[in-house]
Amino acid sequence: MKVPGFKAAAVAAELRYRERLDLGLIVADQMVDVAGVFTRNRVQAAPVLWSKEKVAQGRARAVLVNSGQANACTGPEGLEAARRSAQALAGLLNCSPDEILLASTGVIGQPLNLAGIEQALPALMAGLDEKNLPLVAQAMMTTDTKPKIVKDQGRIDGRPFTVIGLAKGAGMICPNMATMLSFILTDAQVKAPLLQLILERAAEKTFNRITVDGDTSTNDCVLALAGGPAGPPLLDSDESPGREDFEKVLTGVMADLARMIVADGEGATKLVRVIVSGAADESQAKAAALTVANSPLVKTAWFGQDANWGRIMGALGRSGADFDPNRVDILFEDVPLVKNGLDAGLEDAAAAVMRRPEFSVKIDLGAGTASAEVLTCDLSLDYVKINADYRS
Amino acid sequence: MKVPGFKAAAVAAELRYRERLDLGLIVADQMVDVAGVFTRNRVQAAPVLWSKEKVAQGRARAVLVNSGQANACTGPEGLEAARRSAQALAGLLNCSPDEILLASTGVIGQPLNLAGIEQALPALMAGLDEKNLPLVAQAMMTTDTKPKIVKDQGRIDGRPFTVIGLAKGAGMICPNMATMLSFILTDAQVKAPLLQLILERAAEKTFNRITVDGDTSTNDCVLALAGGPAGPPLLDSDESPGREDFEKVLTGVMADLARMIVADGEGATKLVRVIVSGAADESQAKAAALTVANSPLVKTAWFGQDANWGRIMGALGRSGADFDPNRVDILFEDVPLVKNGLDAGLEDAAAAVMRRPEFSVKIDLGAGTASAEVLTCDLSLDYVKINADYRS
Repeated sequence: MKVPGFKAAAVAAELRYRERLDLGLIVADQMVDVAGVFTRNRVQAAPVLWSKEKVAQGRARAVLVNSGQANACTGPEGLEAARRSAQALAGLLNCSPDEILLASTGVIGQPLNLAGIEQALPALMAGLDEKNLPLVAQAMMTTDTKPKIVKDQGRIDGRPFTVIGLAKGAGMICPNMATMLSFILTDAQVKAPLLQLILERAAEKTFNRITVDGDTSTNDCVLALAGGPAGPPLLDSDESPGREDFEKVLTGVMADLARMIVADGEGATKLVRVIVSGAADESQAKAAALTVANSPLVKTAWFGQDANWGRIMGALGRSGADFDPNRVDILFEDVPLVKNGLDAGLEDAAAAVMRRPEFSVKIDLGAGTASAEVLTCDLSLDYVKINADYRS
Repeated sequence: MKVPGFKAAAVAAELRYRERLDLGLIVADQMVDVAGVFTRNRVQAAPVLWSKEKVAQGRARAVLVNSGQANACTGPEGLEAARRSAQALAGLLNCSPDEILLASTGVIGQPLNLAGIEQALPALMAGLDEKNLPLVAQAMMTTDTKPKIVKDQGRIDGRPFTVIGLAKGAGMICPNMATMLSFILTDAQVKAPLLQLILERAAEKTFNRITVDGDTSTNDCVLALAGGPAGPPLLDSDESPGREDFEKVLTGVMADLARMIVADGEGATKLVRVIVSGAADESQAKAAALTVANSPLVKTAWFGQDANWGRIMGALGRSGADFDPNRVDILFEDVPLVKNGLDAGLEDAAAAVMRRPEFSVKIDLGAGTASAEVLTCDLSLDYVKINADYRS
């Protein structure tokens, strides 16, 4: 799992947890083009504020990521701690602190363990190796049960390129943002402005279409780093030959990561694809899909493998989408559970579909031609257990 | 628990449940003035459609309520079943079906057990007695663990009047509607148009300010019936002497019922009053309070008695309210947990507050002078258990 031009390392810095990786580093062999999308939450963590500013310059050398403390709601001191961690790393890399991107995840409101980070940096530098990206995926984890890393390859003008994506979930996951932390690395030569455009389009189709619990985080960010010594030809506009292939590969990597985040949603036992069609317009389709996907009553019924379509109707009805209840069809995979707003007498067949770990709920509102899709999971006993106990 | 001019009865009609009251009847001795507020969900149950039409006429004789089937998403046949149940009761009461109000609660999508209702009506009529309102509160219950009935009294021009309110919760509870079922009875003489005005104002301050799970029901309705043989002077406008006192008593009864609904929220172990002040305007204050009150992460932390204020900040940040995170104060009762957006080091004291069954979370956004209050509960393991198993 490696991509030419990038090295990585992770260590157990014991920032909060004992004896597990919690500090990760990705270093590009040379300056690379960068892009980023960030949380739209009004409360933004110090590393988000820091990285936003640096991404705007379009170039960077490294990403430093920690789990344990989110460094959010930590005021001017939190920003100062972020700055000092970047400074310490820049000293070791012989670059400017402005070329260091930062990301944090963990408990909100606790100060960053700066001393722990500074102490761990030499070991982190010593561990840098192109094979170590999977260790960074591990170091980013909080309540995730699995590291999330995806690789895909393509060709531009006959020359191969690689895209690797890393991500972490698993709670505070809701659309309208760049979900939690994800880093996308490629050796394709993509100029920053185009990379930004592609990243935004891909995020809208992938990370912005998943939800675990409707809670948007203060720390979400997706960073993309592009560049490598032996990369294929330069992409610098939507018209560049190969741009389309590159965007497809990058979007595919992000879609895979998004799916992995939901599948590993806190306590999730089911991965559910909510597909709304027949809506009056796309924003109504998205609102309807999201309202169903975020409804606690719908999600607990999924957990109970109960084909309770009345709760889906209830959620659709409060979503703001315009439709006539008597024209709604609902299918669980290919089982038509509701036909023209009425029970079709197939609950047993639908319940059988729900015993699968992954299934689709297809809703036709009968009010137009627009559609939207959202990936989500159920609301289980373990979700409550995890979040009642997270900090203890 | 009685109010002059009204009789009530309830029977076990076995519409869905075995051996428990599930059909209730309230009959006024004479025609009374009525008002109603109904769910704003686009999917509206047959009894909601029926009662809306009747309430618009301003006069009624009786309310028939069943639990077991919601009679929602049942198409034209559901409406026909509602009509026939009203017709059957009207025959026994010697009145027009237009004078019968209907309310249902239970599973969405299942046809009304009309035969069961018709069969039970004679026994229901035979049981009518002014002492039996508490039985109706029982018959309305679904996942409620307790019947909810409140009585208060006041005076208009020296003459006493009584207001009794009945309500049921306990899931699919979210503001922006008349929460689930509630009936308000009074022997005060209040003309229908004024009663409607007062009911709407009271609902906005009470039922529209509570949330259990953010899910709006298809069946919500609050009906108010006013009139009695020995009632006090007529109220017919906001300027009528005594109007203010009456509205205060009625609002108080509804506030008590709203509180009881949340306290008996599905699986609830904590009753939490979220009070947002210092907002730029009232709609932002309400949005901020509701987003905190509906956040699964905030609610599970309450269940875990974890003073995790970072989740509250995260919810505020995605609420759409305009504020500077560095000016936010958060108190748990009188414990200042967050001061100017930063941890005040008092988590242990706040956790002690959370061990109480009922407490306030006070948030000052530092962005203005508007405020809003929302009553809610925690999200517990039992909420998930109840809703994963509800129909089995």
